[in-house]
Amino acid sequence: MLNRMNNHARVPIGVFGASGYVGQELLRLLTTHPGAAIAFATAESAAGEVLEGHTLVRTEDAPVGRAELVFSCLPHGVSGRYVEAVRAAGRRVVDLSADFRLKPEAVYGLTEVTRARVADAALVANPGCYPTAALLSLIPLARCNLIASDGAVIVDAASGVTGAGRSLKREYLFGEVAEDYRAYGAGNAHRHVPELRSTLAREGGFAGDLVFTPHLLPIRRGILETIHVPLTAPTAPGAVLAVLQEAYRGEPCVQVLPQRLPSLRDVVYRNRVAIGVVPVADVARPRVTLVAAIDNLVKGAAGQAVQNMNLMLGFAETTGLAC
Amino acid sequence: MLNRMNNHARVPIGVFGASGYVGQELLRLLTTHPGAAIAFATAESAAGEVLEGHTLVRTEDAPVGRAELVFSCLPHGVSGRYVEAVRAAGRRVVDLSADFRLKPEAVYGLTEVTRARVADAALVANPGCYPTAALLSLIPLARCNLIASDGAVIVDAASGVTGAGRSLKREYLFGEVAEDYRAYGAGNAHRHVPELRSTLAREGGFAGDLVFTPHLLPIRRGILETIHVPLTAPTAPGAVLAVLQEAYRGEPCVQVLPQRLPSLRDVVYRNRVAIGVVPVADVARPRVTLVAAIDNLVKGAAGQAVQNMNLMLGFAETTGLAC
Amino acid sequence: MLNRMNNHARVPIGVFGASGYVGQELLRLLTTHPGAAIAFATAESAAGEVLEGHTLVRTEDAPVGRAELVFSCLPHGVSGRYVEAVRAAGRRVVDLSADFRLKPEAVYGLTEVTRARVADAALVANPGCYPTAALLSLIPLARCNLIASDGAVIVDAASGVTGAGRSLKREYLFGEVAEDYRAYGAGNAHRHVPELRSTLAREGGFAGDLVFTPHLLPIRRGILETIHVPLTAPTAPGAVLAVLQEAYRGEPCVQVLPQRLPSLRDVVYRNRVAIGVVPVADVARPRVTLVAAIDNLVKGAAGQAVQNMNLMLGFAETTGLAC
Amino acid sequence: MLNRMNNHARVPIGVFGASGYVGQELLRLLTTHPGAAIAFATAESAAGEVLEGHTLVRTEDAPVGRAELVFSCLPHGVSGRYVEAVRAAGRRVVDLSADFRLKPEAVYGLTEVTRARVADAALVANPGCYPTAALLSLIPLARCNLIASDGAVIVDAASGVTGAGRSLKREYLFGEVAEDYRAYGAGNAHRHVPELRSTLAREGGFAGDLVFTPHLLPIRRGILETIHVPLTAPTAPGAVLAVLQEAYRGEPCVQVLPQRLPSLRDVVYRNRVAIGVVPVADVARPRVTLVAAIDNLVKGAAGQAVQNMNLMLGFAETTGLAC
Repeated sequence: MLNRMNNHARVPIGVFGASGYVGQELLRLLTTHPGAAIAFATAESAAGEVLEGHTLVRTEDAPVGRAELVFSCLPHGVSGRYVEAVRAAGRRVVDLSADFRLKPEAVYGLTEVTRARVADAALVANPGCYPTAALLSLIPLARCNLIASDGAVIVDAASGVTGAGRSLKREYLFGEVAEDYRAYGAGNAHRHVPELRSTLAREGGFAGDLVFTPHLLPIRRGILETIHVPLTAPTAPGAVLAVLQEAYRGEPCVQVLPQRLPSLRDVVYRNRVAIGVVPVADVARPRVTLVAAIDNLVKGAAGQAVQNMNLMLGFAETTGLAC
Repeated sequence: MLNRMNNHARVPIGVFGASGYVGQELLRLLTTHPGAAIAFATAESAAGEVLEGHTLVRTEDAPVGRAELVFSCLPHGVSGRYVEAVRAAGRRVVDLSADFRLKPEAVYGLTEVTRARVADAALVANPGCYPTAALLSLIPLARCNLIASDGAVIVDAASGVTGAGRSLKREYLFGEVAEDYRAYGAGNAHRHVPELRSTLAREGGFAGDLVFTPHLLPIRRGILETIHVPLTAPTAPGAVLAVLQEAYRGEPCVQVLPQRLPSLRDVVYRNRVAIGVVPVADVARPRVTLVAAIDNLVKGAAGQAVQNMNLMLGFAETTGLAC
Repeated sequence: MLNRMNNHARVPIGVFGASGYVGQELLRLLTTHPGAAIAFATAESAAGEVLEGHTLVRTEDAPVGRAELVFSCLPHGVSGRYVEAVRAAGRRVVDLSADFRLKPEAVYGLTEVTRARVADAALVANPGCYPTAALLSLIPLARCNLIASDGAVIVDAASGVTGAGRSLKREYLFGEVAEDYRAYGAGNAHRHVPELRSTLAREGGFAGDLVFTPHLLPIRRGILETIHVPLTAPTAPGAVLAVLQEAYRGEPCVQVLPQRLPSLRDVVYRNRVAIGVVPVADVARPRVTLVAAIDNLVKGAAGQAVQNMNLMLGFAETTGLAC
Repeated sequence: MLNRMNNHARVPIGVFGASGYVGQELLRLLTTHPGAAIAFATAESAAGEVLEGHTLVRTEDAPVGRAELVFSCLPHGVSGRYVEAVRAAGRRVVDLSADFRLKPEAVYGLTEVTRARVADAALVANPGCYPTAALLSLIPLARCNLIASDGAVIVDAASGVTGAGRSLKREYLFGEVAEDYRAYGAGNAHRHVPELRSTLAREGGFAGDLVFTPHLLPIRRGILETIHVPLTAPTAPGAVLAVLQEAYRGEPCVQVLPQRLPSLRDVVYRNRVAIGVVPVADVARPRVTLVAAIDNLVKGAAGQAVQNMNLMLGFAETTGLAC
C-alpha cells in the first residue's frame, strides 16, 4: 500500500453495469478514491452516455485486460457469465449481484465478519443489502448462543426504492410509489432469505426459524430493519448491547448506539451500519428488538464493495469512504 | 332513521378539538354528511379561525347543550374532563382520545366487533389507529384458537405523520422526517400496547405474548401493519384467509384480499381496513403473516367515529363515508 | 333534473380510458355521483381488471349505444377517432384529451367561462389542466384591459406527477422524480401554449406575449401557477383582487382569496381553483403576481368534466363534486 | 499553501451556530477537509450535544482566540454582534447570515465574481442561497448588455425546506409541507431582493425591474430558479449560451449545460451551480429563459463558505469540496 500511494500509481479498475443506481454510486466513490483509476465502465442501453466523466461502453466490449480488478453491478442471472470471463482473463472480481453469494468458489464479502478471507480472494461475492444489516446485527448474538432456537427471529425490513434498481416497471413509477407503503416478497419468498439463513448458520451457528419480510418505502435511499429476537434466557440489562459493542469495538463502519435506536438519517451517504437494541417489556419469554440502519447503496452495496476492494488491493480499509 | 332523513332535520353535532389533523378530517366528514349539522367546533390556539365554514370557538365556551352528540378530538389527558362535562349535560359522546379506552363506563367502539353495544352507548371510546388495524386482523384468528399462545405475535406497524398530530416538536419538522424512517416506542413502550392486549384478551381470548413496534413513515396518511402469527397447528392452504373472509362477510368497511397483500393505496381517504394473509415458508412451526392497512385519519380515527355516530343516531352505518 | 333525481333513473355513462390517473379519478367521481350509472369503462392493457367494481373492457369492444354520454380519457392522438365513432352513434361526448380543444366543432368546456355553450353541446373539449388555472386567473383581467400588451405575461407552473399520466418512462420512475424538481417544455414548447394563447385571445381579447414554463413537482397531485402580469396602468390597492372577486361572485368552484396566496393544500381532492393576488413592490412598471392552485385530476380534468356533464344532463352543476 | 499541506498543520477553525442545517453541513465539510481542524463549534439550545465528534459549546463561551478563522451560521440579526467580537479579537470571519451582505466593510463572497477581493478579506459576507444562483446566471448577461432594461427580469425560485432553517414553526411541520407547494414572500417582499438588485447593479450594471418570487418545495435540499430575461435585441441561436460558457470557462463550480436544462439531481451534495438556457418561441420581444440549480446547503451556503475560506487561507479553491 505504501508504494501504491506514494508513487501515485492508481490501480486501474473496471465497472460492469455502471448506469444503474448501484453502478452510479460505485462510479462516484471510485472517482474520488485516491488510489483508483477507472479503466472502463459499461452499460447496455446507456452505452455511449457519459457518467462522472467516463463514457460508458457496452459490457461485451469492455477491455477487461486493462483493469486489475473488476466490479460487476450487472443484474442477477446476467452477471455470472461476465464474471467468469473476467476470471478467465486472470483479473480479480467483486461481484455485486447475487450470482455467487451461495457458491463456494467466492468469498462472501461481509467485511467485518469475513475480512481475513477477503484480502486474498480472487472473487468476492458482495452481500445483499438486506442481509448486510441483518447479519451484522444477528451474528454476534448467535455466536454467543443468545438466540433461542425454538422461537423465531422476525426481520421486518423497509427499503428505499433505489434498492429495486432502475428497471422500468409500472410499480416503480413515482405515481405508484409516492405516499404508498407496502410489503413484498412476504412469507419468506424474497431472494435474500437463503442468503440470510445460510450465512447465519455458517457464521453464527444459528439454524432456527427466521421470517424475513421486506417493505418498499416511498424514499430513494436507506434500509431500516426491525429485528425481533427471542432470547435463550433472561439477560441482565445491557447484556445484549454489550455483546454488540464488544463484537464491533474499533470497527469504523459499524456504530453500536448505546442510548437510542438508529434512523436512516444516521447512515445515508455513509458506509456504515448503525445498530441499536431495546429489551421488550410485558412478555413471558425474554426478548430484545434490534434496529439496524444502512444506506442500501453504500454499506449495502457500492460502499462495502469498495471496502472489500481496499482490502484486496492493500489500501487502508476505509480509503475513499465516509463512515 | 327514516324520519330523520325524510324530514331533513339534521342532527346537531359538536366537535371538540377541530383544528388538529383528526379534527379537520372529522369536520370535513360531518360537513358532507347528509344527516348531521355542525352545532359548534372548538380549538384552543386556533380559536377564531374558520374551518370548512365554521368559526372555531374555545372549548370551554362551547354551547354543549345545543348538540345532540359531541365528538372529542382533544389530546389524551385533556379530553377526559371535557367529556365528563358533556355527559353531565346529558349529551352523548364519541371520545377519540385514549382517556376512556380502558375504562368500563365506555363502550369500546371497534365497530365491527362491538357494534351491538355501540348503538345504545352514552359514551363510546373510539379505538386507537394502530389497535383498529391489528385487532380487526387478529380477533377472528384468536376466536378460532388459531394463535399459538407459547409463541409471540409480532406487530410491526408504520404510520404516516398525521398519526402523531400537529404538535410542534422538532422531530416532526419536514426537514427531520423527510427521507427518514425510524422506529419509536419500541420494546412495548407505546401507549397502544395495553389497549391492544386487553382488547385481544377480552374480545378474542388471547393472552399470549405480543410485541408491538411502531415506525414513522415519511408520508402524511396511512398505517400498514405487518403481523406475524405463530399458529397452533398446521393449517390447510387458505384456511386462515377463510376465517377472515367468514368473519367479515358482508362488512362494508373490511376488505379481505384473497390474492394479494394490501398497500396504503387501497385505503387512504376511505373508511376501510384491508387485510391480506400469506403463509410463511421454510419454518418449523406453522406461521402466517398478515398485512393490514388503514387510513389513520379515517377508519383509524374520524371515519370510525362517524361510523359509530351513525349507529348511535340510527343512520345507516356508512352514511357519509366512502368505504 | 327534478325528474331524473326523483325517479332514481340514473343516466348511463361510458368511460374510455379508465385505467390512467384521470380515468381512475373520473370513475371514482361517477361511482359516487347520485345521478350517474357506469354503462361501461374501457382500458387497453388493463382490460379485464376490476376498478371501483367495474370490469374494464377493451375500448373497441365498448357498447357505446348503452351510454347516454361518454367521457374519453384516451391519450392525445388516440382519442379523436373513438370520439368520432361515439358521435356517429348519436351519443354526447366530453373529451378530456387535447384532440378537439382547438377545433370549432367542439365547445371548450372551461365551465365558468363557457357555461352557456356547454349545456347544449354534443361535444365538449375539456380544457387542459394548466390552461384551466391560468385562464380562470387571466381572463377577467384581460376582459377589463388590465394586462399591458407590450409587456409579457409570464406563467411559471408546477405540477404533480399524475399530470404526466401513467406512461412507463424512465423519467417518471420514483428514483428519478423523488427529491428532484425540474422544468420541461420551457421556451413555449409545451402543447398547452396554443390552447392558452388562443383561448385568452378569444375569451379575453388579449394577444400580447405569453411565456409558459411547466415544472415537475415530486408529489402526486396538484398544480400551482405563479402568473406575472404587467399592468396597463397603476391600480388602486385591491383593484385587481376586486376584478377577480366580481368575476367569480357566487361561483362555487372558484375561490378568490382576499388575504393570502393559495397553496396546493387548499385544492387537492376538490373541484376548485383558488386564486390569490399580490402587488409587486420596487418596480417601475405597475405589476401584480397572481397565484392559482388546482388539483390537476379534479378541476384540472375529471372534476371539471363531471361539472360539464352535470350541465349537459341537467343536474345541478356541482352534483357529486366536493368544491 | 504548500507549507500548510506538507507539514500537516491544520488550520484551527471555529463555527458559530453549528446545529442548524447549514451549520451541520459546514461541520461535515470541515471534518473531511484535509487542511482544517475544528477549534470549536457552538449552539444555543443544542449546547452539550455532540455533532460529527465535536461537543457543541454555547456561542458566548466560544474560545474565539483559538481559531484562525470563524464561520458564523447564526441567525440574521444575531450574527452581527458575535462577528464584531471575533473581528475585535483579530480573527477573520466568513459570515453566512445576511447581516453584512449589504455593508461596505464586508467583501461579498460570490466567489466566481469577487474572487480577487475574497482572498485578502478580513470579513466575507457569504451570499444568500437564492442570490447565488440568480446572480451567477444574470451577471454575465448584464455585463454584455443583453438584458433589456425596459422589460422585467422575472425570477421564480423553488427551494427545499432546509433553506428555511430548523426553526420550530407550524408551517414547517412535515404534515403541513408534505404534498404541498406554495409561494411565499411574493411581490418582492423577500429579504433577498435588495441583495439581488444591489449586487446585479454593482457587478453587472443592470438596474431595471426585477421580480423575485420564492416557493417552498416539499423536499429537503436544492434550489431551482427559472429566470425569464427580456433581451435588448434578437440574438443568434446559442449566443446567450456562448456568453455563459465564456464567462465560466475553467470554473470548477459552475456548469453551463449546452444541451439541456438542469434539475436538482445535477447539483445536490455538490458545490456547483448548473445553468441552462432556452430561447422563447412565439413572442414578439426576443427573450430567453435560464434555469439555474444549486444545493442550497452547499454552493448556496456552507460549500461556498468553504470555497471562500480556501481562498482566504491559501488552499486550492475546491479543497474538501465535491463540485
